[in-house]
Amino acid sequence: MSPKNIEEEISKIDNVLNAAQKRFGQFGLCKTTMTEIASDIGLSKAALYYYYPDKESLFEAVIRKEQKEFVEEITKLIKSASKAPVLLSMYLKKRQDYFEKFMNLSKLKYDSIMNSKPLFGKLFEAFNKKERELVRTILEFGISNKEFKKMNTQENADFLINLLQGLRFIALKKQDDLTMNDEERTQLDENLKKTMNMFIRDISI
Amino acid sequence: MSPKNIEEEISKIDNVLNAAQKRFGQFGLCKTTMTEIASDIGLSKAALYYYYPDKESLFEAVIRKEQKEFVEEITKLIKSASKAPVLLSMYLKKRQDYFEKFMNLSKLKYDSIMNSKPLFGKLFEAFNKKERELVRTILEFGISNKEFKKMNTQENADFLINLLQGLRFIALKKQDDLTMNDEERTQLDENLKKTMNMFIRDISI
Repeated sequence: MSPKNIEEEISKIDNVLNAAQKRFGQFGLCKTTMTEIASDIGLSKAALYYYYPDKESLFEAVIRKEQKEFVEEITKLIKSASKAPVLLSMYLKKRQDYFEKFMNLSKLKYDSIMNSKPLFGKLFEAFNKKERELVRTILEFGISNKEFKKMNTQENADFLINLLQGLRFIALKKQDDLTMNDEERTQLDENLKKTMNMFIRDISI
Repeated sequence: MSPKNIEEEISKIDNVLNAAQKRFGQFGLCKTTMTEIASDIGLSKAALYYYYPDKESLFEAVIRKEQKEFVEEITKLIKSASKAPVLLSMYLKKRQDYFEKFMNLSKLKYDSIMNSKPLFGKLFEAFNKKERELVRTILEFGISNKEFKKMNTQENADFLINLLQGLRFIALKKQDDLTMNDEERTQLDENLKKTMNMFIRDISI
């Protein structure tokens, strides 16, 4: 392929992902069809299936894109070299936005998520690892800045992520699906912030 | 029924529960049969079915018994009026023992637990509520003792239980079943203790 053709391909894929993101965001995974996405951007169904053999793989690509954007945002934040406690709080905020987006994109019942474990397992394993790396980097930054005590940064990053993931899970489990009403969301947000602040106080010099 | 007959009935049920507890503890819910339990205590199968119409309701009764014992132990601890931070740490220790026991009794794959949600949901809802009450009582005791800061005790009890439940859940989810090897168990234990200590430091005067 010539560079020009590669560029065209990338922009086509970008178009597909943007259209899919919109559809999934509005109607959820189950109620969106490949035909609708194709017609949204004037693509033939055959052409869409050439890029993504089924709806699940397209959904996976959308989620991967969002995960990539999340990681890039946090990496940029870290490079902006603010104070480490501020970075942790900003990280939490971005993480909450990211999950809101995911819940909105999938609009899946909790049961369906669990039943599509192979799909979601694959998707979240790499992201989960990346997230722990990001937090570890912030902790190391805080130590070098003399804001945080010396500690095993990987262990503490894992600990923090486990706490945050656990709280989110418990909140979702109560609802039995991935939708929360405003009150439940506020409650979870408060608990997450409380945990982060407690953690920051605990590791601060 | 005469008082003597009532006593006999209670002791019969106690025998059944003890035999069931042993069987479940050794072979798990699925691999234990009603016939075995009946024969363990020289009871006819018909008599056993008279007390418990199926294996699930017998299992439920065993779990309820263990929950009751757990709550009684903690209540006794609270009445012993030690220091509130010590009470919280002891509560955590008992809670871990209790879950070990439950995991051992059921020997269920994570999926089966989720699929028998009606059964386990019912079982844990009441216990969950009771647990939050116990922790709230300890927090109130700590405040009256001037060991803990003034706070909304129900909110903080809920927060703590959510953190502990979340950590346990994340650890179990990784294994996809309810069995953990020694390393995973040690890791979870450390994270639970770390969380409890962080929480205690945070609320202490």
